[in-house]
Amino acid sequence: MTYNVAILGASGYTGAELVRLIATHPRLNIVGLSGNSKAGMAMADVFPHLRHLDLPVLTTIEDMSFDGVDLVFCALPHATSQAVISQLPKHLKIVDLSADFRLRDPADYEKWYGKPHAALEMQKEAVYGLTEFYRDEIKTARLVAGTGCNAATGQYVLRPLIAAGVIDLDQIVLNLMAAVSGAGRSLKENLLHAELSEGAHAYAAGGTHRHLGEFDQEFSALAGRPVHIQFTPHLIPANRGILATTYVQGDPKVIYDTLVAAYQDEPFIIMLPMGQHPSIKHIRASNFCHIGVVADRIPGRAIVIAALDNLTKGSSGQALQNANLMLGLPETEGLMLAPVFP
Amino acid sequence: MTYNVAILGASGYTGAELVRLIATHPRLNIVGLSGNSKAGMAMADVFPHLRHLDLPVLTTIEDMSFDGVDLVFCALPHATSQAVISQLPKHLKIVDLSADFRLRDPADYEKWYGKPHAALEMQKEAVYGLTEFYRDEIKTARLVAGTGCNAATGQYVLRPLIAAGVIDLDQIVLNLMAAVSGAGRSLKENLLHAELSEGAHAYAAGGTHRHLGEFDQEFSALAGRPVHIQFTPHLIPANRGILATTYVQGDPKVIYDTLVAAYQDEPFIIMLPMGQHPSIKHIRASNFCHIGVVADRIPGRAIVIAALDNLTKGSSGQALQNANLMLGLPETEGLMLAPVFP
Amino acid sequence: MTYNVAILGASGYTGAELVRLIATHPRLNIVGLSGNSKAGMAMADVFPHLRHLDLPVLTTIEDMSFDGVDLVFCALPHATSQAVISQLPKHLKIVDLSADFRLRDPADYEKWYGKPHAALEMQKEAVYGLTEFYRDEIKTARLVAGTGCNAATGQYVLRPLIAAGVIDLDQIVLNLMAAVSGAGRSLKENLLHAELSEGAHAYAAGGTHRHLGEFDQEFSALAGRPVHIQFTPHLIPANRGILATTYVQGDPKVIYDTLVAAYQDEPFIIMLPMGQHPSIKHIRASNFCHIGVVADRIPGRAIVIAALDNLTKGSSGQALQNANLMLGLPETEGLMLAPVFP
Amino acid sequence: MTYNVAILGASGYTGAELVRLIATHPRLNIVGLSGNSKAGMAMADVFPHLRHLDLPVLTTIEDMSFDGVDLVFCALPHATSQAVISQLPKHLKIVDLSADFRLRDPADYEKWYGKPHAALEMQKEAVYGLTEFYRDEIKTARLVAGTGCNAATGQYVLRPLIAAGVIDLDQIVLNLMAAVSGAGRSLKENLLHAELSEGAHAYAAGGTHRHLGEFDQEFSALAGRPVHIQFTPHLIPANRGILATTYVQGDPKVIYDTLVAAYQDEPFIIMLPMGQHPSIKHIRASNFCHIGVVADRIPGRAIVIAALDNLTKGSSGQALQNANLMLGLPETEGLMLAPVFP
Repeated sequence: MTYNVAILGASGYTGAELVRLIATHPRLNIVGLSGNSKAGMAMADVFPHLRHLDLPVLTTIEDMSFDGVDLVFCALPHATSQAVISQLPKHLKIVDLSADFRLRDPADYEKWYGKPHAALEMQKEAVYGLTEFYRDEIKTARLVAGTGCNAATGQYVLRPLIAAGVIDLDQIVLNLMAAVSGAGRSLKENLLHAELSEGAHAYAAGGTHRHLGEFDQEFSALAGRPVHIQFTPHLIPANRGILATTYVQGDPKVIYDTLVAAYQDEPFIIMLPMGQHPSIKHIRASNFCHIGVVADRIPGRAIVIAALDNLTKGSSGQALQNANLMLGLPETEGLMLAPVFP
Repeated sequence: MTYNVAILGASGYTGAELVRLIATHPRLNIVGLSGNSKAGMAMADVFPHLRHLDLPVLTTIEDMSFDGVDLVFCALPHATSQAVISQLPKHLKIVDLSADFRLRDPADYEKWYGKPHAALEMQKEAVYGLTEFYRDEIKTARLVAGTGCNAATGQYVLRPLIAAGVIDLDQIVLNLMAAVSGAGRSLKENLLHAELSEGAHAYAAGGTHRHLGEFDQEFSALAGRPVHIQFTPHLIPANRGILATTYVQGDPKVIYDTLVAAYQDEPFIIMLPMGQHPSIKHIRASNFCHIGVVADRIPGRAIVIAALDNLTKGSSGQALQNANLMLGLPETEGLMLAPVFP
Repeated sequence: MTYNVAILGASGYTGAELVRLIATHPRLNIVGLSGNSKAGMAMADVFPHLRHLDLPVLTTIEDMSFDGVDLVFCALPHATSQAVISQLPKHLKIVDLSADFRLRDPADYEKWYGKPHAALEMQKEAVYGLTEFYRDEIKTARLVAGTGCNAATGQYVLRPLIAAGVIDLDQIVLNLMAAVSGAGRSLKENLLHAELSEGAHAYAAGGTHRHLGEFDQEFSALAGRPVHIQFTPHLIPANRGILATTYVQGDPKVIYDTLVAAYQDEPFIIMLPMGQHPSIKHIRASNFCHIGVVADRIPGRAIVIAALDNLTKGSSGQALQNANLMLGLPETEGLMLAPVFP
Repeated sequence: MTYNVAILGASGYTGAELVRLIATHPRLNIVGLSGNSKAGMAMADVFPHLRHLDLPVLTTIEDMSFDGVDLVFCALPHATSQAVISQLPKHLKIVDLSADFRLRDPADYEKWYGKPHAALEMQKEAVYGLTEFYRDEIKTARLVAGTGCNAATGQYVLRPLIAAGVIDLDQIVLNLMAAVSGAGRSLKENLLHAELSEGAHAYAAGGTHRHLGEFDQEFSALAGRPVHIQFTPHLIPANRGILATTYVQGDPKVIYDTLVAAYQDEPFIIMLPMGQHPSIKHIRASNFCHIGVVADRIPGRAIVIAALDNLTKGSSGQALQNANLMLGLPETEGLMLAPVFP
């Protein structure tokens, strides 16, 4: 049995990544693609790397028919998703890749995104899309809210450690390096090749990055008390990948064993042998996440490092993994592509 | 039905690329991996991006058992393949990725590779591995000699034009840009990141690159007279990809139509609309080759540009395509992965 | 004695490069900087790499005083220069980095730039800024029109050969690779890091690039007959640098000797030993141009390759070299900075 | 008055960087260059970017004459410097760029470098080369030991804060990103373009990097008690630059003011306005260090970020700055080159 899917916002990087992954998925058919600013164009003209595929022409959302569609991926910009999703036919399953339904408390949404939430009723039924930790709810959800790509990476490191109570909750530093595709296909000066190549810098240091809303929500719920981490993202001259170097205080061996236990049955989360360092080079264009643990020379401290591809495991791969669950398909279907190296 | 394959020389880039492609091929099992300098190591330690796969430990070729093996991919360095392949059991089908069996005339081999051919008997039965043009011979071959990656790119542009007699055979300039993985995982100063990044330069200009041996052999055979092209490769700061910009003299419209006719039924060779420029960015990590034709302002001249991934269509993807044919499998099996962008 | 200079269009890459070079020039003071869209901002906020310098705040052109200014560099976008320059006070010497005064024939300007020339009177006194070939005229000029960066590179290869009559004028192929800063600090999708990194493609193939207007003008004048070359630029993932690989027909030894004779007394044009290949890596951020000649295996054909930095020798370095001449200063003053490697 | 200098180890990146800087220094003449493995070669063949300079041919150290030489830069690999330097004529001033004389306690040297110190007598007179903090000793020193490039960066952030007692000495995390040239021109697999480009990873995490020897020595001396920081270096796909993101606990405003006070008269250490982030893109190929301070959302915590060029301010520029002092020249002579951007 196959299912029909549509992708809203197919002219952005996460939309294109969904098409790439679904192209070799044996059970999904792409029957609709929207891209309002590029409506009427062929995908081959918007993304020439997809030229070999037989794909629908891009339409506006208004012109798209959802008859016969089973599931919609919504890869629209933040803030526009709420309006669009609340108008979609009720028979559709929806995987949203934006930030619009990630924060359960409307006050948190307003705090981090600067405007009131516009679809409060739908927010109530939205399930947070970090598959490995919300698997059961996702299977029966109608609306899944994909996580932030940085938020996913940090949570893969920290959730099991917070849940197990093996680290000091007040001394967590998450230093993160992010490749440029995480910023999307947007025309900003700092994303130009001439500005970014041979460069590297922090941004939104000091606790102002929006993904902290997700960290606060999830970690505080796990711990049963407020947890605030320090989080500094950096932009590096690479196209895909996130490397999260996390400084935690606790017993390194216990920390390692806790993570191994948490992920031993997970198909996509892979623990390296103790002491090894992951690299974004080794998970590129795949749905895998590599995690390494190194003991610091200072007793009682450890560095936990996670690497994943922001467009795949951090966004579109996660979305497809969730869609598989929602449609009753094997969770890994279409997602076992090996990383591309070099 | 599935087939068992072994990869000799699995510790190089083309070996790793074969593993990546076969990882999602539904009918091939990897039962042996050799890498003499890394024998005894797990592939996860040699290529951490393959860590999620259950793969045989690397062995020496001497320690490898070929019982039950149907086909061997030989990704060894040039000149060592001849000795190894001539000793392999006779029941094996062999796809060689080295240069050792590409040149039919032993004198040509000695001219371009600087030493006498060491397996003349096997050379006689070797089929040149440019799939689209040797498909029938490959289906029944025991030994297929994969082409040079630059040689493949140039031939996709020029073979149909030479065969159809629509260009001047004495005025062909092939200007080619090659990414660095084509040089393999070898420790050379000019391949260091600090030396190559932000750089670009020609090498082996003036007709000294070994892939000219293949061009001379194939184009002269097609034309029925000696054909010598001008060929200048350049190294550019990218990891994968070849862009061949070819200057030919003939009617641009006829040239375009000739190429369209030649490739209209090919699954992997894709003609862009007249006037468009292909990019190595749009075929990365895939088995597709994009070809564009542009008319010059000077009447009777055209620029034909081809882009492919040297590790995939130029080497390991080509090898798998040929292996599919040799094993009676659908030619495209395992090879329809969409390019990775960005 | 020192001179006061102003830079119009200081918020672009060529403007910033002028500031970088003048920062260590012993005889020039920057007394005015304009940048209409960023008027009122400090240069440190527009270009943080210039933070250590004591520079004027950016103003609009209208608000800039030219009292006491000796020379103006005009680094404005094409087409706006004509209007601005025709209104400047008559006591000013002017080095224009735009395309507005490069083409002597107004019909050529209109053909290549798509609109009538707007300052015909000033065009008459403009001197073409390729220093090595217009040195005497530049010394006494009031208005010097800087060349296109690609146009400069190609002319360094071809002018001496055409002037000496040692190559076939009807068989010239100029294949050129250009780094991204040549496109300026403009917000275009194809200039994003995610779009360009790991990519490479031709553009404006077939004779449509505007710098052909300069080639046609200069080469035809030198030859005393129309000369039309084939010219294909490519964009490569590097920030600075142009590599021009030129295919010419003539005796390689004569070609080499002709170039050596032409450039033996030039401080910035450096001939490599016969057979060597230049690289953009070796002239980066400097005013030097490296040229190499390789004989092809086909008798009577040669490949001539030139490398220069598009922002320095191709634009702002050239402009400063011309300004030195116009002000009666040593031509090399402030320009002997060694290339930056790696 | 001018001085004659020699460079030992001129075939490595720091040696070449010294030549680049001295090329436009008005008072230094390069009279000797050694490079044992490349003795007899012209620098133009080892580093083509220096082709325009009139430089001595590379010799062995044994063949070099030190008559008339005032100062020697020793850019040899770690561990070989000790033997060479202890044999140099006593009239020479020496700036060592290796690690051999950085650690005052021979036991520390043996701990971090794995072998006994081989020149204990000379160690006693060596002055640690962090110019801004050892200026007076450097002026009269015969032997100055250049710092590690990472060690310099971390100290620019932390020395004033530790000296002023404004941060918690037991909660210091130094997360550092380093470009690849810091590893030198050495043939290692992980330094290949194909391995590093599009990658990013930590290395020597957990307190095993040798530059910790310098941090421990200097910070403990400043604090009057043992200070051990956490330090994780990462390799990023860039050629030049170090970005140190430092997590400290103390009042952000006090921290900022302390750094401003420390560096207000320094020509090369530039404080950004509070809240701004430096980038390695903005100090490339220059001797400047940019430092930014951001307050964290958690009260009493700050992030201090420093950017410098490992080859310039982190190594060869620092060496030249020290040489200027040792020779009685203005400290900034030859070092005011503006950063190269883009």
